[in-house]
Amino acid sequence: TPFAGSLPALDAVPDCTAWLVVHGVHDLAMVKQLGARFQLHPLVMEDLVNPVQRMKIEEYDDYLFIVLKWLVRNESGDWETEQLGLILHDQWCVLFLEEASDLLEPLLRRLRKKNSALRKRGPDYLVYAIVDLVVDHYMESVEELSEDLETLEDTLMDPDAAPLDDLKELQNSAQTIKRNLRAMKDLNNAILRVDLPVIQDGTQLYFRDVHDHALQCLDQVESVQESINNALNFYHSMISLRLNEVMKFLTMMGSIFIPLTFIAGIYGMNFQEMPELKWRYGYPAAMALMALVSIGILMYFKRKKWL
Amino acid sequence: TPFAGSLPALDAVPDCTAWLVVHGVHDLAMVKQLGARFQLHPLVMEDLVNPVQRMKIEEYDDYLFIVLKWLVRNESGDWETEQLGLILHDQWCVLFLEEASDLLEPLLRRLRKKNSALRKRGPDYLVYAIVDLVVDHYMESVEELSEDLETLEDTLMDPDAAPLDDLKELQNSAQTIKRNLRAMKDLNNAILRVDLPVIQDGTQLYFRDVHDHALQCLDQVESVQESINNALNFYHSMISLRLNEVMKFLTMMGSIFIPLTFIAGIYGMNFQEMPELKWRYGYPAAMALMALVSIGILMYFKRKKWL
Amino acid sequence: TPFAGSLPALDAVPDCTAWLVVHGVHDLAMVKQLGARFQLHPLVMEDLVNPVQRMKIEEYDDYLFIVLKWLVRNESGDWETEQLGLILHDQWCVLFLEEASDLLEPLLRRLRKKNSALRKRGPDYLVYAIVDLVVDHYMESVEELSEDLETLEDTLMDPDAAPLDDLKELQNSAQTIKRNLRAMKDLNNAILRVDLPVIQDGTQLYFRDVHDHALQCLDQVESVQESINNALNFYHSMISLRLNEVMKFLTMMGSIFIPLTFIAGIYGMNFQEMPELKWRYGYPAAMALMALVSIGILMYFKRKKWL
Amino acid sequence: TPFAGSLPALDAVPDCTAWLVVHGVHDLAMVKQLGARFQLHPLVMEDLVNPVQRMKIEEYDDYLFIVLKWLVRNESGDWETEQLGLILHDQWCVLFLEEASDLLEPLLRRLRKKNSALRKRGPDYLVYAIVDLVVDHYMESVEELSEDLETLEDTLMDPDAAPLDDLKELQNSAQTIKRNLRAMKDLNNAILRVDLPVIQDGTQLYFRDVHDHALQCLDQVESVQESINNALNFYHSMISLRLNEVMKFLTMMGSIFIPLTFIAGIYGMNFQEMPELKWRYGYPAAMALMALVSIGILMYFKRKKWL
Amino acid sequence: TPFAGSLPALDAVPDCTAWLVVHGVHDLAMVKQLGARFQLHPLVMEDLVNPVQRMKIEEYDDYLFIVLKWLVRNESGDWETEQLGLILHDQWCVLFLEEASDLLEPLLRRLRKKNSALRKRGPDYLVYAIVDLVVDHYMESVEELSEDLETLEDTLMDPDAAPLDDLKELQNSAQTIKRNLRAMKDLNNAILRVDLPVIQDGTQLYFRDVHDHALQCLDQVESVQESINNALNFYHSMISLRLNEVMKFLTMMGSIFIPLTFIAGIYGMNFQEMPELKWRYGYPAAMALMALVSIGILMYFKRKKWL
Repeated sequence: TPFAGSLPALDAVPDCTAWLVVHGVHDLAMVKQLGARFQLHPLVMEDLVNPVQRMKIEEYDDYLFIVLKWLVRNESGDWETEQLGLILHDQWCVLFLEEASDLLEPLLRRLRKKNSALRKRGPDYLVYAIVDLVVDHYMESVEELSEDLETLEDTLMDPDAAPLDDLKELQNSAQTIKRNLRAMKDLNNAILRVDLPVIQDGTQLYFRDVHDHALQCLDQVESVQESINNALNFYHSMISLRLNEVMKFLTMMGSIFIPLTFIAGIYGMNFQEMPELKWRYGYPAAMALMALVSIGILMYFKRKKWL
Repeated sequence: TPFAGSLPALDAVPDCTAWLVVHGVHDLAMVKQLGARFQLHPLVMEDLVNPVQRMKIEEYDDYLFIVLKWLVRNESGDWETEQLGLILHDQWCVLFLEEASDLLEPLLRRLRKKNSALRKRGPDYLVYAIVDLVVDHYMESVEELSEDLETLEDTLMDPDAAPLDDLKELQNSAQTIKRNLRAMKDLNNAILRVDLPVIQDGTQLYFRDVHDHALQCLDQVESVQESINNALNFYHSMISLRLNEVMKFLTMMGSIFIPLTFIAGIYGMNFQEMPELKWRYGYPAAMALMALVSIGILMYFKRKKWL
Repeated sequence: TPFAGSLPALDAVPDCTAWLVVHGVHDLAMVKQLGARFQLHPLVMEDLVNPVQRMKIEEYDDYLFIVLKWLVRNESGDWETEQLGLILHDQWCVLFLEEASDLLEPLLRRLRKKNSALRKRGPDYLVYAIVDLVVDHYMESVEELSEDLETLEDTLMDPDAAPLDDLKELQNSAQTIKRNLRAMKDLNNAILRVDLPVIQDGTQLYFRDVHDHALQCLDQVESVQESINNALNFYHSMISLRLNEVMKFLTMMGSIFIPLTFIAGIYGMNFQEMPELKWRYGYPAAMALMALVSIGILMYFKRKKWL
Repeated sequence: TPFAGSLPALDAVPDCTAWLVVHGVHDLAMVKQLGARFQLHPLVMEDLVNPVQRMKIEEYDDYLFIVLKWLVRNESGDWETEQLGLILHDQWCVLFLEEASDLLEPLLRRLRKKNSALRKRGPDYLVYAIVDLVVDHYMESVEELSEDLETLEDTLMDPDAAPLDDLKELQNSAQTIKRNLRAMKDLNNAILRVDLPVIQDGTQLYFRDVHDHALQCLDQVESVQESINNALNFYHSMISLRLNEVMKFLTMMGSIFIPLTFIAGIYGMNFQEMPELKWRYGYPAAMALMALVSIGILMYFKRKKWL
Repeated sequence: TPFAGSLPALDAVPDCTAWLVVHGVHDLAMVKQLGARFQLHPLVMEDLVNPVQRMKIEEYDDYLFIVLKWLVRNESGDWETEQLGLILHDQWCVLFLEEASDLLEPLLRRLRKKNSALRKRGPDYLVYAIVDLVVDHYMESVEELSEDLETLEDTLMDPDAAPLDDLKELQNSAQTIKRNLRAMKDLNNAILRVDLPVIQDGTQLYFRDVHDHALQCLDQVESVQESINNALNFYHSMISLRLNEVMKFLTMMGSIFIPLTFIAGIYGMNFQEMPELKWRYGYPAAMALMALVSIGILMYFKRKKWL
C-alpha cells in the first residue's frame, strides 16, 4: 500500500508524533477520504490533487498546509519539477507525494526506523528537515549552474553557435530556479511569522537558519543570472569584434587588389593606339605602378590603424 | 429584457441573496434608474457607463464597487477586453455587463437554476466565483502565451523575418496581460483588507486563495516576458552570428579570387615585351603561382580560425 | 483687470465660498500685495513668482499650497508646460495663472456664472474639479502618444531614418509626461493624507477617484514607454535583418561571379603555350567549367540555408 | 588668521548666535584643539581631517555633524569636489573648509557684516542657507548637463566619433551628480527627522522646502540620465542605419558590375574557336546582354525595396 | 599551539575581557570541544566548520555569532575569499580563522600586547575594530577596481580584443564585491538592531559609523559597476563605428574600381568588329570615360556625406 504509516495507529497514539506518507496524489478518492479523516479544507484538497504553479504555505485553524517544489535533472539534462504537499499539525504531519522521490527517500527511510532520532522530535522538526533538504538541493542545482557557466565561458571564444544555445538553456534554468527560490523565500518568511503552536520555539531557530540558506541561494542564483547576461554581452561584443576583423581583412584584400586588377585591365585593352604597350620598359613600369599603388594603400591602412 | 432577475422580486425577499445581471451598460437611462434604486454614488455610475482603463475596487458606505476586466482572443487572434461592473452589498449583488460574455455564461446559467448551490451562498461567494473565473481565465491566457512562445522558439533558427513580428506581438500581449494582472493583484489585496460586512470571514479565505492564484499568474507572465526578452536577444545574437558566417564566406571567396584574378589580369596585358609570355612553362608557372597564393591565403584563414 | 473676483468682496462675505483668479504671476508687486492680504508664507510667494520644476503640495497652518503643471501641444507639435498656483483655504481659494489657459477657461467661465453648481460647493470641490481636469488632460496626452506610436509602428518597415527621429521624440514626450504624472501621484497622495479642514470628507472621496485616474494614467504612460522601447528594439533587429539580407545577396553575387571572372581571366592570358586555347571545344569546355563552379557554389548556399 | 570669528568671543556671548569658519582642515593640530574646545567625538574629528566619500549627517548628544559636498567645474571642464564640514549646536555653528570656496564666499561675506539679517537668525538658519545654496548649485549643474546634452543631440548626425566621447563624459558627470544628490536626499530626510533642539520648528519648514528642491533636482538628473541613454541608443541605431546604407550601395555596385565584368571577361578569352567573336553584331549583342543583366539586377533591387 | 589565549585563563578572570583566536577551523574535533566549552548551538558549529556562502549574524541567547568574509588578491591577480567566524559574548569573544590572515595580523599583534588599548575595551570594541578593518579593506578593493577601470578606459581605443577580457574580469570582481557588501550592510544593520548586552551603547555609535562606511562603499561599487557597463556600451559603439569606417572605405574602393575594371574589360574583349578599338583617340577617350565615372561616384559619396 502507498501508506507508509497506517491510519488506525494514528488514533491510538495521539500523544506521540505521527506521520503519514501518501503516494499517488492523483487518486482523488483517496485524497478525499484522507481529507475527511483529517478535516482538511476543500481548497487544500484541490491543491493536493492539481499541481500548483508556485510553492506556498497556508495557515488554517489548527494546521499549516505547505506545498514544496524542487527541480530534478532527468537523463536528457532537462529540469523536471517534483512536488510535495504537506499538512503540519502540532501532533501529526501528512506528506503527499505523486511518486517516490530520490531526494526524500533517505530521510523517509530514517523516519521508518523505529528508534530514529527524527521520530523523537516533533512533526515540525520533520518539516524543517524536509525544507532544509529542498533548500540544500536548490543550492546544489545553483552550484551546478554556476559550474556549467564556467565551463561555457571557456568555450565562448569558440566561433560556432553552440555556446549561444547552451547559454540560452542556462538562462532558462536559472530563471526557473530563481522563480522557485523566490517562492521558497516567501514560504520561509511565512513560516517564521506563523503563530500557531504547530511550530515550536526551538524549531523556529532551525527555520531561521534554513531561511538564511534560502536567501544565500537566491543571492547566488541572481549572481549567476547576472554572470550569464554578462557572458552574453561579452559574446555579442566578441562576434562584433570578429566581424570587424574579418571585414578589415576583406577590405584590405579588396582595396589593394581591385585597383591593381583595374590597372592590369587597362593594359589588357585592345586599342590599336596604346603607346605604353610598345615601350621597352612598359611592363616593368606597369608593375612598378602597381607596387606603388599597393604600398600607398597599405600606408593608408597603417595610418588608420586598421592593420 | 436584459434583466436576469427582476427588480420587484428584490424588494420582496430582503433576507435571501439577490442578484441582478444588467446587460447593455451603455444605456445611460437604465443605469441612472438602477443607480437611484440602489442609491449608487455618482462616481460609480460614471464608471459603469464609461469603460475604465484599469480594474479597480472602491469601498462605499455599505457596498463595494468592483470593475473586472479580462481579455478574450477574437477570431483574428487579437486580444479584446471585456469588462464587468459589480456592486456587492451584503445582501445583494448587481452585475453590469456590456454584452453576454462566453466566460461568465456558464456561471450565470448555474445561478439562474432554482436550487443551485451558488444561490444558497451569500453574494460575496458569487463575487469570489467570478473573480476566480477571471483569474483562471488569465492563467489560461498566460499559458497560451507560454505555448506560443515555445512554438516560436523552435522557429527562431528560421532566417526570415516572421518570428520577429510574432515575438513583437507576443510581447505586446504579455505586456497587456501583466498590466491587467497587476491591477488584479491590487484589487485582491484591497478585497482582503475590506472591513465591511459585505465580505464574510469564510469567503475571505477563498479570496486569499484567489489572490494566491493571481500572484502565481503574475509571476508566470513576468517569467514569460523575461523569456521573450531572452528569445529576442538570442535571435539578435543569431542574426549577428549568421552575418558573421556570411561575411566570412564572402571574405574567403573575395580574398582568394580577387588576387588570383589580378595575376591572371597581369598576364592578360598586351605589352609587347613580356618575357614570361614566351616561356615554355609560363602558363603552368602562372597556374602554380596562383595555387601558391591561394594556399597561402587559406592557411592565413586557418590560423585566424575563420575557417 | 486680471482679477476675476474682487478683493473687497472677499471680506464682505466670509461665510460663502470665495475664489480669486490672478493672472500674470510675474508681477512681483501684485503677488506681494496678495501675499500680505492672505498672509502667505514667503516660500509660497517665491514659488508663485518663479516657475517650479515639479508639481507639489505644501501644508501650512490653515491653507494648502498646490502647484499644478500640465502640457499643451503648440502648433509646431512640441509640448509646452503651463503652471497653476493654488492656495486652498477652507473658505476661499486663490488661483495664480501666468496667462489665460485653454484648459481651465471653460471651468472658470462656469465659475463666473452667478448660479453655477460649482459656486455652491466648497473651494475644495473647485480644486478637485481643476485637478480632475488636469489629470484628464494628461490622460488625453497619453492617449495621443499611444496613437502616435501605433501610427509609427506601421511605418517601422519603411527603411529610411524617419521613424527613428519620431520614436526619439515620442520617447522624450513620454518621459516628460511620466515625470509629471509621478509628481501628480505624489500630490494626490499628499492631498489624501491632509488633515486640515480645508478638504471636506465628501470631497476626499472625489480626490480618491482622481488619484485612481492618475494611477491609471501613469500605468498607461509606462506601458507606452515599454512599447516604445520594444518598437526601438524591433526596429534595431529589423535593420540587422535587412543588413543580413543585403549582405547575403552581395555574398552570393560576389561568390559566384568573382571565381567565374577569374576563370575567364585565365583564358584571357596571353601565354604563347596554352594548349586549351587551341582545343576545338576549349570554349564550350570553359563555359561548362564555369557552369559547374557556379552550380557548386549555389548548392553550398542552399546547404547553408542562405538562399 | 583663518578664523572668521574668534574663539574667546564665543565664550563671552553664550546667548547670541556664534559661528566660526575654519579653513585648512588638513591641519590636524588645529582640528584637535577645536575638537577639544567643542567636545567633539573622535569619529567627527576623523571625518573632518579625511575627506569622506559621501555627504552625511550624524546626530550626537547636543550637536549635529553634517558633511556637505558639491561639484565645481574647473577650467578644463572637469568636475571637482569641494567639501564642507559643519557642526551645528543650538547656540553655535562651526564650518570647516579646506580652502576658500567661490560658492560660500558671498554668504560668508554677508555673515561677517555686523547687522546682517543672517546673524539675527539662529545657527540652524545659517545651515539652511548653506544647504539651500548647495542644492541650488546642484540644480545649476544639472541644468548645465541638460543644456550640454541638447547641444550634443544636435550633433548626433555628425558621423565622426566625437559625440560618443562627449556622451560618455556627460554620462559620467550625471552619474556623479546623481550619487551626490542621493546622499543629499538622505541627508535632508535625516535633518527632517532630527529630534534635537538644534533645529527649530520654524526652520524645519525651510528644510522641507530645500528637501523638495533636492527631490526635484534628483528627478531631473535621473531624467537627464534617461535622455543620455536614449541618445546613445539613438546614436547606435543611426550607425547601424548608415552601415546599412553604405552596404546597400556597395552591394548594388558589386552586384551589377561584377557580373558585367565577367561577361566582358568571357569575350576577352583567347580561345581560337569562339564563334561569337566573329559575328558582325557580336559586340553590340554583348553590350545588349550586359544591359539586360544590369536591368534585371536593378529590378530585383527595386522589388526588394533596397533602392 | 594555535590558541592565542589559553582556555584555563578564561575561567580564572571572568571580569576582564577575554579573547581567543582559533586557527584551523577544519579541525572538527577541536571545534566540537570548543563548542562544548562555550555551549555553542549545533548550527553555529556547523557554520564554523563549513565555509558559508554569505556573511551573516545570528543572535543566540547570550551571544552573537558573526561570520565575516573578505577578498584578498593573490599573486595571479585573482580574488580569494577569507573567512572569519566570531562568537561575541558580553565578556569574551572567540575568533575562528582557517589560517593566519594578513589583514587581521596587525590587529591581533596589538591585542597580544599586555597593555594595549584594545585589551582595555570590551569584546564588542574588538569586534568593531575587526568589522571596521574588513570594511576599510573592501573600500580599498573598490578603489583598486576604480583605478583599474580608469586605466582600462584609456586603452578602449586600442582595437584589439584585450580590453574586452579585462572589462569582463573587472565586471566579475565588482559583482563579487557588491554581493559581499550587500551582506555586510545586512550584517551591520542587524548589529545596530541587536538587543543583547553584548553590544554596549558606546560601541553602538562606532558600529553606526562603520555601517556608514559600508554604505558609502556599496554606493561606490555600484557606481563602478555602472561605469563598467557604460564603458562596455561605449566600446561596443566604437566597434560599430570602426566597422562603419572600414566598410565605407571598402565601399568607396569597390564602387570606384569595379566599374572602371568593367570598362577596361569591355575594351579587352576580342570581338573582330569593335570600331572604338581602331579610333585614333580611342585609348585616351576610354581613359577620360573612366575618369568621368570615378568623379561621378566620388561626387555621389560626397553628397551622401560618406567621405
